[in-house]
Amino acid sequence: MSALTSSVKAMVFDTFGSVVDWRASIVRDLSGWGAENGCTANWAELADKWRGKYQPRMQEVRSGKRAWTILDVLHRESLDELLPEFGLEHLTTTQRDHINRVWHRLDAWPDAVAGLSRLKSRYILGPLSNGNVALLTDIAKYSALPWDVILSTELFRCYKPQPQSYLGVCNILGLAPGEVMMCAAHNDDLRAARAVGLKTAFWPRPQEYGPTQTTNLVATEQWDVIAKDIRDLARQMGV
Amino acid sequence: MSALTSSVKAMVFDTFGSVVDWRASIVRDLSGWGAENGCTANWAELADKWRGKYQPRMQEVRSGKRAWTILDVLHRESLDELLPEFGLEHLTTTQRDHINRVWHRLDAWPDAVAGLSRLKSRYILGPLSNGNVALLTDIAKYSALPWDVILSTELFRCYKPQPQSYLGVCNILGLAPGEVMMCAAHNDDLRAARAVGLKTAFWPRPQEYGPTQTTNLVATEQWDVIAKDIRDLARQMGV
Repeated sequence: MSALTSSVKAMVFDTFGSVVDWRASIVRDLSGWGAENGCTANWAELADKWRGKYQPRMQEVRSGKRAWTILDVLHRESLDELLPEFGLEHLTTTQRDHINRVWHRLDAWPDAVAGLSRLKSRYILGPLSNGNVALLTDIAKYSALPWDVILSTELFRCYKPQPQSYLGVCNILGLAPGEVMMCAAHNDDLRAARAVGLKTAFWPRPQEYGPTQTTNLVATEQWDVIAKDIRDLARQMGV
Repeated sequence: MSALTSSVKAMVFDTFGSVVDWRASIVRDLSGWGAENGCTANWAELADKWRGKYQPRMQEVRSGKRAWTILDVLHRESLDELLPEFGLEHLTTTQRDHINRVWHRLDAWPDAVAGLSRLKSRYILGPLSNGNVALLTDIAKYSALPWDVILSTELFRCYKPQPQSYLGVCNILGLAPGEVMMCAAHNDDLRAARAVGLKTAFWPRPQEYGPTQTTNLVATEQWDVIAKDIRDLARQMGV
């Protein structure tokens, strides 16, 4: 065993984009729902604009301008704002609830379940996502993600990349920061985790934002592991 | 599907005694450790007296006399108090740490993994225990308990049977109390859960406290499900 694989006890994973393919899942799910319910819209554009409101809305909470609010609620507010732009302002509350919960029905990238299953044989695995606990639990069930524990920033009432997200996880697992590896397809998440002492692993998801993505195509720092995908991460972590 | 099995979305399980056999596990583990380390003691008596300090110590936290403290810490204080009684006051900090973590190395009752695996196909499953998150995560890994989510009263900074334990779980799962079933081999746990609207399931563990147990041998109320064990609970819940 290398020094790295013998010191790491838990691996925690960014979820949206890193483990699950939110964009293609949303387009697929809502296209199907639209066809059954007589609604047509540019679902890819809706997905992109919806995701576009993700950081600004969390920023209101991070800055303290707004009290702690879970992601399901933030998602719903963003959706309500966007629907008129897509000619969908007539949708009922029940229909809006169903659409909002598409974030609970996201498909894993093809390498994720195989890679995580191998990693689970040696390490404690959990998501570490800004998604709330119910959302992450539902995704795990929907996509058969073999987590040992659901870790959400909801538990610490903050949003990544705030340092308490990462330190909260170490504390609740009873581990030192150097025993926990943050795993993500996003360099900024890893930068924040490394700043408070966690180990780091990166792999790219060049299609997360669709065919024209320009960010996070490569590792921008020398992370502890730089992998091709989660299956390759498992190989590099010795399992 | 019955009205019950169609309304329940999540099943949460008391862990010590209900899912894992803490007493026999502790005796087995510490006997082995003692033999390797030249320590002899009445391990069954130690287990019983250690467990005997569980409720009084949590009561100090429940009553507000003491700030929130996780179970690993309470366990360690109880252990330190007991060791002199067993001629073990010479044990080092490392040895005490190892013994204290026996609560992370508990074996499941023989029906537990099979029953939970079946229930997982339809319901969201988690422990709902006074054990802290790290302890419950370690037990799950040690005994291959197929939880979807680790729910601990640590998340709500209270101890069962305080109502916030049960209501906190409903809130974090985004479910109504009637959609959550508390499952336990202890009537008092179920009574507290039912008082705030949860569904309830009971099965006996007549050997939890060893051969002379006199409590919780039968259901003392008409719980929603009364089963023989967790495998039978799965059958009654339609899976």
